[in-house]
Amino acid sequence: MILDIINKKANNYELTKEELETIFLGYLKGEVKDYQMSAFLMAIKINDMSDSEIFALTDIFIKSGDILDLSYIKGPKVDKHSTGGVGDKTTLIVAPLVASCNIPVIKMSGRGLGYTGGTIDKLEAIPGFKVSLTEDEIKKQAEDIGLVIISQTKDLAPLDKKIYALRDVSGTTDSIPLIASSIMSKKIAGGADKIVIDIKVGKGALIKNEEAAKRLSSLVIKIGSYYQKEVRTIISNMDRPLGNNIGNLLEVIEAIDILDNKKKGNLYDLSIEIASKMLSMAKNIQEEEARKEIITNLNNKKGLEKFFEFVKYQHGNLENVEVKAKVYNIKANKDGILKDIDALNIAKLSLNLGAGRKTKDDKIDYNAGIVIKKNIGEEIKKGDILASLYTNVDSINFNIERIFEIS
Amino acid sequence: MILDIINKKANNYELTKEELETIFLGYLKGEVKDYQMSAFLMAIKINDMSDSEIFALTDIFIKSGDILDLSYIKGPKVDKHSTGGVGDKTTLIVAPLVASCNIPVIKMSGRGLGYTGGTIDKLEAIPGFKVSLTEDEIKKQAEDIGLVIISQTKDLAPLDKKIYALRDVSGTTDSIPLIASSIMSKKIAGGADKIVIDIKVGKGALIKNEEAAKRLSSLVIKIGSYYQKEVRTIISNMDRPLGNNIGNLLEVIEAIDILDNKKKGNLYDLSIEIASKMLSMAKNIQEEEARKEIITNLNNKKGLEKFFEFVKYQHGNLENVEVKAKVYNIKANKDGILKDIDALNIAKLSLNLGAGRKTKDDKIDYNAGIVIKKNIGEEIKKGDILASLYTNVDSINFNIERIFEIS
Repeated sequence: MILDIINKKANNYELTKEELETIFLGYLKGEVKDYQMSAFLMAIKINDMSDSEIFALTDIFIKSGDILDLSYIKGPKVDKHSTGGVGDKTTLIVAPLVASCNIPVIKMSGRGLGYTGGTIDKLEAIPGFKVSLTEDEIKKQAEDIGLVIISQTKDLAPLDKKIYALRDVSGTTDSIPLIASSIMSKKIAGGADKIVIDIKVGKGALIKNEEAAKRLSSLVIKIGSYYQKEVRTIISNMDRPLGNNIGNLLEVIEAIDILDNKKKGNLYDLSIEIASKMLSMAKNIQEEEARKEIITNLNNKKGLEKFFEFVKYQHGNLENVEVKAKVYNIKANKDGILKDIDALNIAKLSLNLGAGRKTKDDKIDYNAGIVIKKNIGEEIKKGDILASLYTNVDSINFNIERIFEIS
Repeated sequence: MILDIINKKANNYELTKEELETIFLGYLKGEVKDYQMSAFLMAIKINDMSDSEIFALTDIFIKSGDILDLSYIKGPKVDKHSTGGVGDKTTLIVAPLVASCNIPVIKMSGRGLGYTGGTIDKLEAIPGFKVSLTEDEIKKQAEDIGLVIISQTKDLAPLDKKIYALRDVSGTTDSIPLIASSIMSKKIAGGADKIVIDIKVGKGALIKNEEAAKRLSSLVIKIGSYYQKEVRTIISNMDRPLGNNIGNLLEVIEAIDILDNKKKGNLYDLSIEIASKMLSMAKNIQEEEARKEIITNLNNKKGLEKFFEFVKYQHGNLENVEVKAKVYNIKANKDGILKDIDALNIAKLSLNLGAGRKTKDDKIDYNAGIVIKKNIGEEIKKGDILASLYTNVDSINFNIERIFEIS
């Protein structure tokens, strides 16, 4: 029976919802083995899925666990998701900006497995910050300040989690229908009904080409409308890191700099765009109008105030924060123009400095990371500092040419 | 690294021999996991393999174990292989016929996992028959009577065995390049240099269509010539069972009937064809000439004598052999013409009667099986016996309409 279903997908026939339930729920129960599921996922990756298969799979993922009830929030529940990028700290900027415009943001975030930390890892880099709250605490905080970011409280889409772990080790992470159903099942189980999805494309991203990004965009919108959820997407470049800081505490510091209106650049631009889309959907206004409101609250520091209020409410202490690590500078070995900064190789270096997890049991060094000192297009002199590395490991190996392209 | 190789095949690029070695030898060592290999095998099944990938894989399989040295046999070492069919007892007929023409046949055979037993299971149905011999015993028997059939003595292509077991449970048994490299690696490691491959196609076979059978035929010939081995193929139908008897001891009895020139039909025809091809290659004569010699030794019972000599030499006792089982008759439920006998459903019934193994640790009931009493095209009267079932199980369930088509 299971082999018949695997063969049907391998032979490129469309599966029924019942067949998808048989194999996926069988996997959740342990009756379908890892080696059967990985073969099946590979058949999906190569032969793709129809829209109705994707809707069915999303539904199976959602119903495999709890569904969060955010009905105590008046009005639409907004959320955002990013497919994962190097130096992406937009949640730390976007959530307080939107909340400062009187739209409550109650967001569940994850830890990172990969090259850098997730939003929860970044928040935990703030001394004292509490990422686990009871449901009563969440509700009270939502009512009091309109902004909560916590690690997952309930068992949302546990089947997706199990499938994701298998995809990660069997070469099927980059399947577009699997990515789409994974993202959307978590967001829908998380109680959101207006969702911005930031799809990263480029060297430092899971999705390497524009065509795949467009298909993912179209799929998450379709899944959303199947569930009466409004989804808007952004396709953003991830050939280069987002902002200048990579590493958990360093990223918190950079997020504060953006909210303090001290710097511009790709991180600023993307944060404004995501926040504007969220606000536009939440208030049912044009994006241009939402953008003005977001920029106003960035300029008048209301977003920054909301961030500080939120950190304090969750017991974080940002006074006297310092990055506790040895600093090594990477210097240019020739004159020229900085042509490119390779996001993937920066991410790998940051992992080696201690900023990410190689296995899920690894401990992150919150102080570790990289600050990029030069921007693309800048003129470089030999000996200029290109980046500062923060680390507590004893030895670092990297190839400067693979990270910075000067010519 | 492993994931890069899996992804390369998933994206339909050709792999180098080094890449194939990395993943397959890694699997043999346990470094590559079952769920990674099954995903990779699925990518092969869907995206196929180039000839040079197939040659490389065959080579990796061969070198994973021992290679049998049959150099004590003068002249060419002939062998045959069948891709597996219902009621296929051709080895029991073909091997003594060829040996009776003074061409030594030293053959390693396997047990069956699937619906019916393998050649070794069938021989073990003969009381006293010894399927394991020492190398000295094999050599002496080869010199004395020119015919030896034994279960595998050495560890031939162990990697193929491990991969085959995984394919069996993960939906990748019907991949033509994987079938071709599996068959040829075992035959080459087994010391053969003139090989007849009987490719079954139809409802009761792994290979369901003519096109796939032709591709397999062309591949095994190519692999053969890469190793300077002569390969000839037969594509034979497996919509209907081969001969009338299914089940281990019942198949020995039918093989004797053929060698005794007591019956004709599809089993007779195929046996003559395989034997003629083997003899033609071994003696380097035309197939028509070889066929005459084979038919002569069938008619004059020299093949039958060789079979009895061989059974006796390996301690088998064919005197007073009787099938020890209860007999149930399947009777026609209407008048008409017998249009079809479904090989796959006959095989499933025979498994349920006890003639095959459901798991590799199951014990076979050598006496269990089916004797088909009517041939295709015969006129049937309601109440006629269509088949006799031999079994020692307490209850049997089957649907007569799924096996016999009368109209």
